[in-house]
Amino acid sequence: MGYPLITSRKNPLVREAAQLGASAQARQGRRRFLCEGARLCQDAARSGVGIDTCFFTASAGKKYGGYLKDVLAVCGQAYEVEGHVAALLSGTKSSQGIFCVCRWPGALQEGVVGFAPLWNCLVMENLQDPGNLGTVLRTAEALGVGRVFLLGDCCDPLSPKALRASMGAAFRVGLVREPSAGHLAQMLKGHGYALHAAVPDSGARRVTGVDFGDGPHAVFIGNEGAGLRPETCELCHDRVTIPMAGRAESLNAAAAATILLWEMQRGAEGRER
Amino acid sequence: MGYPLITSRKNPLVREAAQLGASAQARQGRRRFLCEGARLCQDAARSGVGIDTCFFTASAGKKYGGYLKDVLAVCGQAYEVEGHVAALLSGTKSSQGIFCVCRWPGALQEGVVGFAPLWNCLVMENLQDPGNLGTVLRTAEALGVGRVFLLGDCCDPLSPKALRASMGAAFRVGLVREPSAGHLAQMLKGHGYALHAAVPDSGARRVTGVDFGDGPHAVFIGNEGAGLRPETCELCHDRVTIPMAGRAESLNAAAAATILLWEMQRGAEGRER
Repeated sequence: MGYPLITSRKNPLVREAAQLGASAQARQGRRRFLCEGARLCQDAARSGVGIDTCFFTASAGKKYGGYLKDVLAVCGQAYEVEGHVAALLSGTKSSQGIFCVCRWPGALQEGVVGFAPLWNCLVMENLQDPGNLGTVLRTAEALGVGRVFLLGDCCDPLSPKALRASMGAAFRVGLVREPSAGHLAQMLKGHGYALHAAVPDSGARRVTGVDFGDGPHAVFIGNEGAGLRPETCELCHDRVTIPMAGRAESLNAAAAATILLWEMQRGAEGRER
Repeated sequence: MGYPLITSRKNPLVREAAQLGASAQARQGRRRFLCEGARLCQDAARSGVGIDTCFFTASAGKKYGGYLKDVLAVCGQAYEVEGHVAALLSGTKSSQGIFCVCRWPGALQEGVVGFAPLWNCLVMENLQDPGNLGTVLRTAEALGVGRVFLLGDCCDPLSPKALRASMGAAFRVGLVREPSAGHLAQMLKGHGYALHAAVPDSGARRVTGVDFGDGPHAVFIGNEGAGLRPETCELCHDRVTIPMAGRAESLNAAAAATILLWEMQRGAEGRER
């Protein structure tokens, strides 16, 4: 295709890209992230994410030409790379050989500032597993819950693992990172949200008893090991639970989020009918 | 604790155990599987899974004594192993150093024979990802869906990854591996089940319109890439779908299964109230 060929792993552009894949700090500092895979890179291009640089192997150029075309149409610069250079950039065993250095998505905000209280939304506190986070974003998008708050010390939604699990939803779902539960609760309450703390406690209000079609709702979900912090629970209007038949606490964080997102969407759908 | 010490990776018991972790064929052939981790091994012991052999490191013996006690009470034989031997058995980066060679769980059947049509059940066809399978089993147990059919060419529920994601649910949920969709459909229909094919098609019946409290239901879910096979869809009484607001086909198989399990449990719960 006539793109310049990079043959060395020491090429500064390649090294910078690899760093973006490896380090959340590098992503934060440079306001860039690394995106891997034909479908995901095309998704970034189609979702309006700015693409600085595209790297692809010769075989990827042949095999994924259709995807690559969309990327090359919008990216700042593009390079062909040799296989061993691609291997440095890749986080998977079977790499497709297509990578993009992307600019921060417009959908990702740092800190709650102001927002239109249009939708029910989800709050994930201290979520640690990038696969779980990606799955939650993918499910949120599919079910039309358009805003997810990442509260406290969540893992990075722009890490390669989270991006892969999100199937590009990280580019499109409104994401807000907010360190302070107090500030977030205050903002949400100021916009008329009902705040629900999801807890694995059979004594709490059953989630099936909440009318999610009635005004904007925010559901707070805790992390994989510890659940919601008690301080965060106390900021919410009530405590809700998913009725379980088996052993208590036996849903993982992504499964619990899926059910709660679904109940929110079920309620919103009821309203539209 | 006075258990014999294994210092070599070439020890035949250790080699056999490692093979059980690595190979589905070895598991099938010997009707044994390898279980790793303090919690999971304890879970196996408490769930009535037969344990032939337990291996643990000296530091695991100190750190996880409470878990280990339950295992040692029921296992046939136990050995202390050196760290480098444990590393051979481990499938994780941060091993806890406790392993069990377990006998086939009674809850796992090969082929549909006969069963009591007590419950709603889930059918997963050709599911490929062990993490997804484990999550589905964990969620099925939590939501009280006590029987899951693994149809066609599913990944192994007793692989280390699937076991880990299932948090022990693989020991307790009734699991039936069945290669033939025709045979399974016939058996289920013979027991009065309503068969629903889950499809990502907005023209299909909304899952919210199905009364899962009314008689036994079986929901069929397809695999991550291809969905249900058309031949399998045709064996079902109807096609149901999860209404989605965002992009079509954007739920992963585990998230779709979670929502369908939840809807089944929601219906069953409604019946009990």
